[in-house]
Amino acid sequence: MRITAKDVAAKAGLSLTTVSLVLNNRPSRIPEATQERVWQAVRELQYRPNRRAASLVTNRMGTIGIIVPDVCNIFFASICAACETEARLRDYSVLFGSSGDAVELDLNYIDVFFSKGVDGMILVKAAHTTPEDEDRLMTKILDTNIPFVTVDRKLNMQRGRSITVDHRLGAYMATKHLIGLGHKRIGCITGPAHDVVTHDRLTGYREALTEAGITADPTLICTGDYRIDSGAEHLPYLLGKSVTAVFCFNDLMAMGIYKGCRSYNLKIPDDLSVIGFDDIPFCEALEVPLTTVFQPAERIGSEAMKQIFNLLNHEEEARDFVFEPVLKVRASTSFPKCN
Amino acid sequence: MRITAKDVAAKAGLSLTTVSLVLNNRPSRIPEATQERVWQAVRELQYRPNRRAASLVTNRMGTIGIIVPDVCNIFFASICAACETEARLRDYSVLFGSSGDAVELDLNYIDVFFSKGVDGMILVKAAHTTPEDEDRLMTKILDTNIPFVTVDRKLNMQRGRSITVDHRLGAYMATKHLIGLGHKRIGCITGPAHDVVTHDRLTGYREALTEAGITADPTLICTGDYRIDSGAEHLPYLLGKSVTAVFCFNDLMAMGIYKGCRSYNLKIPDDLSVIGFDDIPFCEALEVPLTTVFQPAERIGSEAMKQIFNLLNHEEEARDFVFEPVLKVRASTSFPKCN
Repeated sequence: MRITAKDVAAKAGLSLTTVSLVLNNRPSRIPEATQERVWQAVRELQYRPNRRAASLVTNRMGTIGIIVPDVCNIFFASICAACETEARLRDYSVLFGSSGDAVELDLNYIDVFFSKGVDGMILVKAAHTTPEDEDRLMTKILDTNIPFVTVDRKLNMQRGRSITVDHRLGAYMATKHLIGLGHKRIGCITGPAHDVVTHDRLTGYREALTEAGITADPTLICTGDYRIDSGAEHLPYLLGKSVTAVFCFNDLMAMGIYKGCRSYNLKIPDDLSVIGFDDIPFCEALEVPLTTVFQPAERIGSEAMKQIFNLLNHEEEARDFVFEPVLKVRASTSFPKCN
Repeated sequence: MRITAKDVAAKAGLSLTTVSLVLNNRPSRIPEATQERVWQAVRELQYRPNRRAASLVTNRMGTIGIIVPDVCNIFFASICAACETEARLRDYSVLFGSSGDAVELDLNYIDVFFSKGVDGMILVKAAHTTPEDEDRLMTKILDTNIPFVTVDRKLNMQRGRSITVDHRLGAYMATKHLIGLGHKRIGCITGPAHDVVTHDRLTGYREALTEAGITADPTLICTGDYRIDSGAEHLPYLLGKSVTAVFCFNDLMAMGIYKGCRSYNLKIPDDLSVIGFDDIPFCEALEVPLTTVFQPAERIGSEAMKQIFNLLNHEEEARDFVFEPVLKVRASTSFPKCN
């Protein structure tokens, strides 16, 4: 039989009100000895307070679900941390899922979190999504009918909000910086194909080239997967293509280029300029500090959570929110050798 | 008024059983058109299924709470990711909290997660805990009376389990490696004082020195805080103490040493040997790959979650679990210059 607060009150010889106040951490004016009697009874009866019952009345669970592709990627970890901080300030907790960039897991998490009664959800969707996958995600989100915010990777959806960085602009600035230094053959290691982020950044890359009167050479574009090794793997191919600079769509792949350059005994930036995306904390600590495009991960995360609460409180109409990226020029980019 | 599954059934003109099967993702033999009628009614009524009601009967919430000091530290992020994967395999979800190494937040998270009805909790406690803080944590944990596993940083507690790495052994191996290369003045940048991890690793550091007949010089030991800058800050002091090697209690602080060495135009390992702890993925990608002590974060995380389920299923008595660390020798350690 389930132990209730009534049983605790009976065991402790106290009123249910007193027990409730202590269990709910509001022991105003209740003597310490009395509080201890409550906890003594709680321990002896192995009682577990049950605020789920209360949540049935308020219909608020006090929980927000967050789904990210990979919490071991510090960019997403920073988003999670900021979301959690923002939620905590409002006495909300965070249910957390890591999809490994698999859309099936995104769909599964939405189901699971929804069935657990979360009050809202924040999704950084898997990168590898086909248009059909997007449709399935969209339908699922519409079905939940709770506040929903997509972050970083936008869905072509009707309702809900998205918090993103202007990926096109970031890639445009990175490429323009390299062109300004004199580079003409600029290799590019993208994120997965079919991803809106890859698409937007490639648009910015091409725009900067076109603007400078350089014909974009599609054979200089490699598809990466945002992991360190993915950068290193494409380096020999790009060197064979005589690139003088490489633009990586995240800092981890840029580190892969650093790793690869050591094997080929190439110096950055003398032999090869490298530019990343994200500005994770290690960029600055590298022996050749990495030039990169800063994305404000913390502000993105806290803004996403704020939007969830706006939606919960019906404070605003749904709208999108776009952060501007910042180019951080450090030591990994320079003039091309044979300019 | 709260919309129930009954309302959905009425709206869709279907039986409550049919609606239940569809809402619970078990639509065996229910035609697609019927399923769509259910979802149509769900959307129109803005119905939210309520498995919290079910959880009142089973008294299992299907949720485990995890508290870590800093999810942006990839060591803790890897632990979280492994916990979450292990939980998902058992249809459990994870409530997540990041304490910023503040014990008050640890205590608060335990309260909040407990009141949300989690079935178990995993805690990597704040590093800055006094013996009094430990007592408060211990009392709080005992009060919850649910399966509880501490990870990485052990509490001197009676019940529950801890999953740790043999920190003493790891520090002993790191120091012995440096001594074997000929280093005698080995600086040390620890974690916060009063922390059991700091204590255990310092024990190992001193053991290796004593074993080699070197008197441990307490003025070579600096207290760090596990952040990159904390490594860089202590470098000038240690250089003034004529150390030939620095043992950092995590890789991030070792990267701070790298950063500092650049300002002083010092070459690693020619001018200074550096060794870290954790083996985060960037160690290998650094221009001088970092020698470090590997901690199996993923195995630690999944073992912690497995122990929670063992406790939930009463499969085993509470016991501790200690992983052995592995020394990974890379390029950042070498013979001292003036040996």
